[in-house]
Amino acid sequence: MRDAVRVDFEPLSNVFESLIGSGGKRIRPALAILATRFYPTDPDKALTLAVTLELVHAATLIHDDLIDRSPLRRGSPTISSRWSGTATVLAGDFLLARAADIAATIGNFRVMSIFAKTLMDICEGEIRQDFGGAHWPPNREQYYRHIDSKTASLFTAATEGGAVLSAAPESEIAALKSYGHNLGMAFQIADDILDFTADERELGKPVGSDLRQGTFTLPVFYFIDQDARGAKIVDFLSEDMDALVDAIRHSSAIDASKAEARQFTQNARDALSIFPDNAYRRALIDLATYVVDRTL
Amino acid sequence: MRDAVRVDFEPLSNVFESLIGSGGKRIRPALAILATRFYPTDPDKALTLAVTLELVHAATLIHDDLIDRSPLRRGSPTISSRWSGTATVLAGDFLLARAADIAATIGNFRVMSIFAKTLMDICEGEIRQDFGGAHWPPNREQYYRHIDSKTASLFTAATEGGAVLSAAPESEIAALKSYGHNLGMAFQIADDILDFTADERELGKPVGSDLRQGTFTLPVFYFIDQDARGAKIVDFLSEDMDALVDAIRHSSAIDASKAEARQFTQNARDALSIFPDNAYRRALIDLATYVVDRTL
Repeated sequence: MRDAVRVDFEPLSNVFESLIGSGGKRIRPALAILATRFYPTDPDKALTLAVTLELVHAATLIHDDLIDRSPLRRGSPTISSRWSGTATVLAGDFLLARAADIAATIGNFRVMSIFAKTLMDICEGEIRQDFGGAHWPPNREQYYRHIDSKTASLFTAATEGGAVLSAAPESEIAALKSYGHNLGMAFQIADDILDFTADERELGKPVGSDLRQGTFTLPVFYFIDQDARGAKIVDFLSEDMDALVDAIRHSSAIDASKAEARQFTQNARDALSIFPDNAYRRALIDLATYVVDRTL
Repeated sequence: MRDAVRVDFEPLSNVFESLIGSGGKRIRPALAILATRFYPTDPDKALTLAVTLELVHAATLIHDDLIDRSPLRRGSPTISSRWSGTATVLAGDFLLARAADIAATIGNFRVMSIFAKTLMDICEGEIRQDFGGAHWPPNREQYYRHIDSKTASLFTAATEGGAVLSAAPESEIAALKSYGHNLGMAFQIADDILDFTADERELGKPVGSDLRQGTFTLPVFYFIDQDARGAKIVDFLSEDMDALVDAIRHSSAIDASKAEARQFTQNARDALSIFPDNAYRRALIDLATYVVDRTL
């Protein structure tokens, strides 16, 4: 990873080092590598795939932080908080180009195409979201489509890319793709629940900040459906945001959202049933538990 | 090109159609196709290379217009003037991803890598430029480096990519690469001269707008070197910008810049001397005359 982001131009090299060095859970690279393990795969290529995924992820984080005007990422100041908008956009673009260059060395055009299509998915989803402000209130279908393109698409690219690289049969590529998709959906829903249930210190931002920015997530949709106060949510939004966030936090919408996230992780695990019970299948099953169920 | 930018999401499809449909000289695709013609090359792949180049070019224009806050491009409102900064950034990213996806179908990893490295060059150059504001006054070396990454790099990618795709010998790839580089340098210098010598109506913006935005181009450096008033340019900048632009416009700096641009086109033509005198070599020689010398 560090080799991949080394650049002659020092300011650029520094911000990448700091973003890469500040951690993150490295879930996408782990998924990609595990997904290559069901068939013999060149370990260097598997590693290159993993690095590419994390670079694409890092590039989208740089652009996201600019879009959301986030001051902090993994406890460090975001690039967008230190650099101009211009330089921040270009830093993200640079990282995408570096990812493409590294991906080309894998020597698999189907993997290249998966990356390119995933990036198109992510961009198109964010543009729809940006335009979506015109449609009020947002609906649940838009939400699923948005978390799919924003988060699940790169999880899917990781497991599909890994399976393709290992030259797995199409049925198994489809199974790993389904696992990645469902895990990604669960992961984002869990994150959206945490935005209500965690405290401000853990989040590094105010509780309910998505809703405060006008973004409806799954707990909000359940609150609208299940809670007597849900029908009046539009009044709440303009009147007392703190009270609304607190109401959702203590409503049945949280448990309903958790159940849905768990259903997605269950679907992810079920998708693996066509594989023999081996160390890699178990690792993928454990990963679903570790990154999602554990947080619920 | 139109097929390449067709997207389900209508607003995105519309802006791409409008950008692609509004013309431009298509120099980069023409260079790429001509560069493939010295050896037998699959015409579909040559066309795909050409489309990819124009898409990358279009993506950089979208981001440039955002950075420069330009209201018009080819006589039509820019995407950045109609959409949010967010959506504009993402529209450019989407187009880069689409270009990568299309480039992957060419099936040549060296070509992929040329594209990726070119994009890194372009981004790094723009970031340097954005940071360069700190170094005052700018110097001539920075200028050459900047126009190389901003313009010549994609010209070089076009001719190098075409030559690589045609499986030309390394010496001929190097010759076509040199041709593309020199033509790109000449092209950008000619553009920078026009910024002083054309009138506001032709330019669609005020005469000398680069300098007004603090960007020193070749005519400015020659003015500093050759004109008595050049030494006092910093006073001028803060006092009477219209007078400064007018002084440069009518100074010997313009002819000196033109001579330098012509030297670059001559270098471009000279680089082709290793090829036999055939229709493709003549077309490349004529292209250098047509796109640069003619405008000087």
